Amino acid sequence: MDGSEAGTGREPAATVERIARAAAEAFPGWSATPPRQRAAALSAVADAVATSGPALVATAMSETGLSEARLTGELNRTVVQIRLFADVVVEGSYLDVRIDEADDDFVLGSRPDLRRYHVPLGPVLNFAASNFPFAFSVIGGDTVSALAAGCPVIVKAHPGHPELSRQTAEVVRAALAESGAPDATLQLLVGQEEGVAMLLDPRIRAASFTGSIRAGRMLADLAMGRPTPIPFYGELGSVNPAFVTTRAAAQRSGSIAQGFATSVSGSAGQLCTKPGFLFVPRGSDIAAGAAEAAGAVGEQRLLNPGITAGYAARRDAILGTPGVDPLAAGAVRVDEDGQGWATPTVVATDLTTLREHRETLLDEAFGPLSVIVEYDDEAELAPAAADLFQGNLTSTVHAADDEDTEALRALVDWAARSTGRLVFGGWPTGVAVSHATQHGGPWPATTNDAGTSVGSAAIGRFLRAVAYQDVPQVLLPEPLRDDNPWGVPQLRSPAGRSRGWGEAFRAGG
Amino acid sequence: MDGSEAGTGREPAATVERIARAAAEAFPGWSATPPRQRAAALSAVADAVATSGPALVATAMSETGLSEARLTGELNRTVVQIRLFADVVVEGSYLDVRIDEADDDFVLGSRPDLRRYHVPLGPVLNFAASNFPFAFSVIGGDTVSALAAGCPVIVKAHPGHPELSRQTAEVVRAALAESGAPDATLQLLVGQEEGVAMLLDPRIRAASFTGSIRAGRMLADLAMGRPTPIPFYGELGSVNPAFVTTRAAAQRSGSIAQGFATSVSGSAGQLCTKPGFLFVPRGSDIAAGAAEAAGAVGEQRLLNPGITAGYAARRDAILGTPGVDPLAAGAVRVDEDGQGWATPTVVATDLTTLREHRETLLDEAFGPLSVIVEYDDEAELAPAAADLFQGNLTSTVHAADDEDTEALRALVDWAARSTGRLVFGGWPTGVAVSHATQHGGPWPATTNDAGTSVGSAAIGRFLRAVAYQDVPQVLLPEPLRDDNPWGVPQLRSPAGRSRGWGEAFRAGG
Repeated sequence: MDGSEAGTGREPAATVERIARAAAEAFPGWSATPPRQRAAALSAVADAVATSGPALVATAMSETGLSEARLTGELNRTVVQIRLFADVVVEGSYLDVRIDEADDDFVLGSRPDLRRYHVPLGPVLNFAASNFPFAFSVIGGDTVSALAAGCPVIVKAHPGHPELSRQTAEVVRAALAESGAPDATLQLLVGQEEGVAMLLDPRIRAASFTGSIRAGRMLADLAMGRPTPIPFYGELGSVNPAFVTTRAAAQRSGSIAQGFATSVSGSAGQLCTKPGFLFVPRGSDIAAGAAEAAGAVGEQRLLNPGITAGYAARRDAILGTPGVDPLAAGAVRVDEDGQGWATPTVVATDLTTLREHRETLLDEAFGPLSVIVEYDDEAELAPAAADLFQGNLTSTVHAADDEDTEALRALVDWAARSTGRLVFGGWPTGVAVSHATQHGGPWPATTNDAGTSVGSAAIGRFLRAVAYQDVPQVLLPEPLRDDNPWGVPQLRSPAGRSRGWGEAFRAGG
Repeated sequence: MDGSEAGTGREPAATVERIARAAAEAFPGWSATPPRQRAAALSAVADAVATSGPALVATAMSETGLSEARLTGELNRTVVQIRLFADVVVEGSYLDVRIDEADDDFVLGSRPDLRRYHVPLGPVLNFAASNFPFAFSVIGGDTVSALAAGCPVIVKAHPGHPELSRQTAEVVRAALAESGAPDATLQLLVGQEEGVAMLLDPRIRAASFTGSIRAGRMLADLAMGRPTPIPFYGELGSVNPAFVTTRAAAQRSGSIAQGFATSVSGSAGQLCTKPGFLFVPRGSDIAAGAAEAAGAVGEQRLLNPGITAGYAARRDAILGTPGVDPLAAGAVRVDEDGQGWATPTVVATDLTTLREHRETLLDEAFGPLSVIVEYDDEAELAPAAADLFQGNLTSTVHAADDEDTEALRALVDWAARSTGRLVFGGWPTGVAVSHATQHGGPWPATTNDAGTSVGSAAIGRFLRAVAYQDVPQVLLPEPLRDDNPWGVPQLRSPAGRSRGWGEAFRAGG
C-alpha cells in the first residue's frame, strides 16, 4: 500500500479500515526492531528529509506563504529533532528499566524477582498542525517521538498543505522501507471525517494534536469517550504573557520594544508561543517603541482563509473594546478567495480594562496582534496574572540584571505554577529542540500537561510500563536481561538492601 | 479545621468549599517543603501508623470482616510503602532534572540555558477502596505517592470502613502537624455527593480511584468533562487469567492446584489480582485438585452487602450458563441485614463455551470464584487470550523448568502487550511494594495505563514538567541550581556536544 494514496478514494470507512489494519499489523515488527536498527531507520529518515529539503521547502512556500528562510530553519530543526530521537532510542534511559532482585530477606517477608520497563502503546494517530508544516506535521515532534517509542504512526494531514504532506510522507516512507521498517510504520490519512473515524478505531492507542481549543477539545472528548479511552495529547491555546519590571524598562526599553515587535510579528504571529500580552510600567516608552517597530514590519501572508477570518474577527473585537488604544493599528487585507495578508496590530490598555473586558480581550488572537498592558505597581503583577490567565505554554519575564524583589519572585512563582516554560530576558518564540525543553503546559495550553511535544522527553507520552515477575532470563525482553545485550541503563535494587532506593539507583545506571 | 469532622454537616456544598479551599491553601507550603523535611514528615506518619497498628487493625476487623493476619500484613505493607516514598523524595530522581547548558555553537545556531524538572500538580482527590482498608485507603499508595510528590490530598472515605477512615486520618494528620506540615496536607471527605462535587472543583488537579468499572468510568468521564480536564487514575476491573502449559501440568499439578485455590480464596477472593481464569490442558488433574483444595476452605465474610449482592448475582449467572460445570459449587449465605458469607466456587468449562457465552462468563466476579478452562492444544492459548481478554493488571504463566516453545513465547508476548504485570510460576495475588512493581494495565484494568498505584513509580502520576530558560541562579528552584543544594541527580547536556544524549546523560546523574 502506498500511504500517499490514502484517503483519496470515495469510501472513508474502507480507507480507515485499511490504514488502521495496516498500522496494527506494523506494530509487532516496528516495536520489536532493536534500538540500533530503529535509530538507523530514523537517521535514514533525517537524511532523506534533509536531501529533499529544497524541494519540500518550495512546496511549503507555495502552500503556506511562509518565507523560505523561516521554512528552511524549520526543516533543519525538524531534521535535528529526528536525529535527537535516534540518539534517545539507542541511549535507552527512556525505557526506565528497574530491576528488583529476588530477596528472601525483604522487609515484608520475601520479594520476587521483578523487572519493569516501558513498552510502546501501539498505533498512534497524529493530527498535523497548519502553522508548522514541518515541525508539527508529517515528520514533526509528535510523529517522531511516537516512532522512536516503537509506535507506528498515522498522520492526519492538515488541509493547509496537502501536497507537502503527500510529498513528505513519500520521502519518509521510502527511507523507512529502505531501512527495513514494516511498510505501514508511517501512513498518511486525508480528510476530516476520516480523522474522526480513525480516532474512534479501537486499534489506535494514543493521539496527538496541535490546533485550536475548539477542535482539540472536541477530539479530546471523543478520545476519552471511546469504549476504551486513550490518551490524547493536544496542544490547544496559549497567550504567553510577558512582563517587564520597572527596573528592566528603565534599563533597556529600546531593545525590549524591538524584541517584542519581532517576536509578535514573526511568521505573521501564527506561532503557539507568540507573546499575546506585554505588561509594562505606566509611562515607559516601550509601548511607543513597540508600535514604531511593529509599524515598520511589512505585509505578510496569513496561512489560510480560515485563519484569516478568525484573526480578522478577533482583531475587530479587540480594537472595538472601550479602553483599548490602537498604537499600531495594522491591517488585514483579504483576497477575493479569502486569503489574507496582515501587518502587525499593537494595542495598549490597562489592568482595569483587561479585567472588565476579560471575555473579549483574554482569548488568543492567532496572528500578528498583541496587547500591551500598562501597570502602576509591580506588586500587582503576580496577583493580576493569577486572576486573569489560565495555563500557558510560556511566560516571559524581563528584569534588570541582579534584580531580586518580592514582586519578581512572586511573578516567577506564578509562572512556574501555570506555565510550561518560563523565559527570562528573552522571547518565547523559538523553541529549542533539546533534552530540557518543555512545550506543553496546564490547560488550555495542553490537554495533558504531563507531556511535551518538543524535545526528547516527548517520547514518554507513547509508553506504558510492564513488569515481569520471576520470568526466566531466556524469555525476558533484552532490556530486562542480566546480560543487557542492548546496553541500556538498568537501575537495580540488590537483595538485602531493599530500602535503599538511592543506593539501588546509583548501583545501576 | 479537623479533617475528621469533614462531611458530617448537613451542607455538602459548604463542606466541599471549605475542604477544597484548605487544600489549595496548603499546596504552596507543602509543595515547597524541602525533601528531607517532607521525608521526615512521611516517616513520622509511618511511625504513627505503625504505633497505632493494633488499634487500627481492631477497627478494621470489625468493619470489614477481614482477618487479623491479613489486616496486620496489609498495615505493615502500607507502613513500608510510606517509608519507601520518604526515600524516593530524598533520592530525587523522580524530579527528572535535565540541564541543557547554553550553547552558542549549537547545531541550530544558539541554544539558551534550559533547565527542566517535575513539579507537583496541586491538590489531589483520592477515592478510597473497600477491599484494602489500609493499602488503598486513607494512607495507601495513591495518597502517599501524591503526598510524596508535594500534593495535598483529600481522601474520599470509603463507606465500608468509616470509623477506620476517621481514625487513620486522625493519626496521619497528627503526625503531619507535629512535623510542621500545613494543616490541610491531608483531609478526609465523607459522602458520595461530596466526592462528586469535589471532583468537579477547579482547585482539584488530579484524582485517583480504585473500584468498579461502572463507578470508575462515571468518575473518569466527569474528570475529563470538566471545563479544565484533569488526569484521572482509576483502577477498575481485571480478571487476571492464568495459563498452565502441558509440561507444567505434567510436572507439578498438585502444587498448581493448591496454589490456585489459595490465591482464589484469599481475602474471600476480593482482590484486584485474583486469578479469575485458569487454563489447563484437558485431562490434567489440576481441576479436580483445585476443586478439592477449594472445598476445604471454610466460610469467609464478604466485605459488605453491596459486594455480597454483586458477587451472588455473578455467581448465579456463571453457574447457570450451559457448558459450565461446577467442580466446587461453594455457597453464598446472606444474613438478614444483607451481609454475606461465602465458600469458594470453582467451575470448569472449555474454550468453545467461553467464546459462545463471553458476555456472561468474561466479566470479573468479585469474590471467591474462578473458572477453569480446559484446552486441547497449547498453540490455541495466545490467540484465544487475544480474542477473549481486554487489558488486565496481571497475567500468569506456569511452564516447566527450561520450557521454551513457540506457544509459550506467544503467550508471554500476548501477556506483555495486554497486561501490567506478568507472573511466572507463581500467583498474582500479593503485590510487592518496590521500585520495579507495576500495578496498572490497559483498559479496563486502569483508565490510564501509564501509571502504577503501587510502588515507587506511582509518584509520576502527580507531576508535570516545567522548564526555566535563562533564569538567574538566584531565582531558580533548588533542584535546578548549579550548586544543587538538595543533591538530586542532574542530567546535564554540556555545551558543544549537543547531540550526545548518552554522553550528556552519563555526565550528570
